[in-house]
Amino acid sequence: MRILGIDPGYGIVGYGIIDYVNNSYNVIDFGVIKTPKEESLPVRLAIIYDIVKELIKKNKPDQIAVEELFYFKNQTTIIPVAEARGIILLAGIHECGEIFEYTPLQIKQALTGNGRAEKAQIQYMVKTILGLKETPKPDDAADALAVAITHANFNQNLI
Amino acid sequence: MRILGIDPGYGIVGYGIIDYVNNSYNVIDFGVIKTPKEESLPVRLAIIYDIVKELIKKNKPDQIAVEELFYFKNQTTIIPVAEARGIILLAGIHECGEIFEYTPLQIKQALTGNGRAEKAQIQYMVKTILGLKETPKPDDAADALAVAITHANFNQNLI
Repeated sequence: MRILGIDPGYGIVGYGIIDYVNNSYNVIDFGVIKTPKEESLPVRLAIIYDIVKELIKKNKPDQIAVEELFYFKNQTTIIPVAEARGIILLAGIHECGEIFEYTPLQIKQALTGNGRAEKAQIQYMVKTILGLKETPKPDDAADALAVAITHANFNQNLI
Repeated sequence: MRILGIDPGYGIVGYGIIDYVNNSYNVIDFGVIKTPKEESLPVRLAIIYDIVKELIKKNKPDQIAVEELFYFKNQTTIIPVAEARGIILLAGIHECGEIFEYTPLQIKQALTGNGRAEKAQIQYMVKTILGLKETPKPDDAADALAVAITHANFNQNLI
């Protein structure tokens, strides 16, 4: 079972691809998609769409897991981030068809057993669970791997 | 100059198409796209993408005007509405390339001269400016026509 995890954004999108077989994880790839600040939002969205599609075509994940957004006070970027997240879901539907969504609380719970865990603790667990020597960088890529791990955990009986 | 105006949403998307030539308006079409409640959000987004693309292919607007979102307190649907708006911008970039965005304040100002005008006043002005016998229904379609009129007003010197 190959899983593509995505941490949505419009300036930077994190992605992480893992194979999960017999309760064992293997990292295939991780990284970020960055969009140029000087471009208009619609153009940046089109760039995200194209690159996410290419990522799916190249790596052929069986399922895609995308982090849900959570609005908190004074989060002025929530609207463009949600616009970009819509694009990511669309690329996922167009190229893979199997999309799953997890809240930040579910991700924290799945990785640490504590829905209120700090970011550093999540990143430590991503490194540990995946057997990596170092924490994946940048943070957005580590977050994307965390979503992929969450999906594997939630679906252990299905995989 | 043919303008497609869009009022974004995920359950219902308003659209309005007008021709604006020599300071005169002609309504080509207006209506709404509805997505099935029983479908997942990614599937509803894919439906919006396909129908907006078809609308552009069929009507061949020169430019597209999309209302910007404005977050206000306790607006729990802002995230899926923004996700759908991202999809609309993408369909616009893919099929037309010319996208313009207007805030609710700009639209109210353009139609009534008052950035704080009530919804009913906007709808009355849509009817009057376009020379229609009745206010376009549903509200989402009237709002979409209002965005198209705003674009025409803002760009009088360019058209």
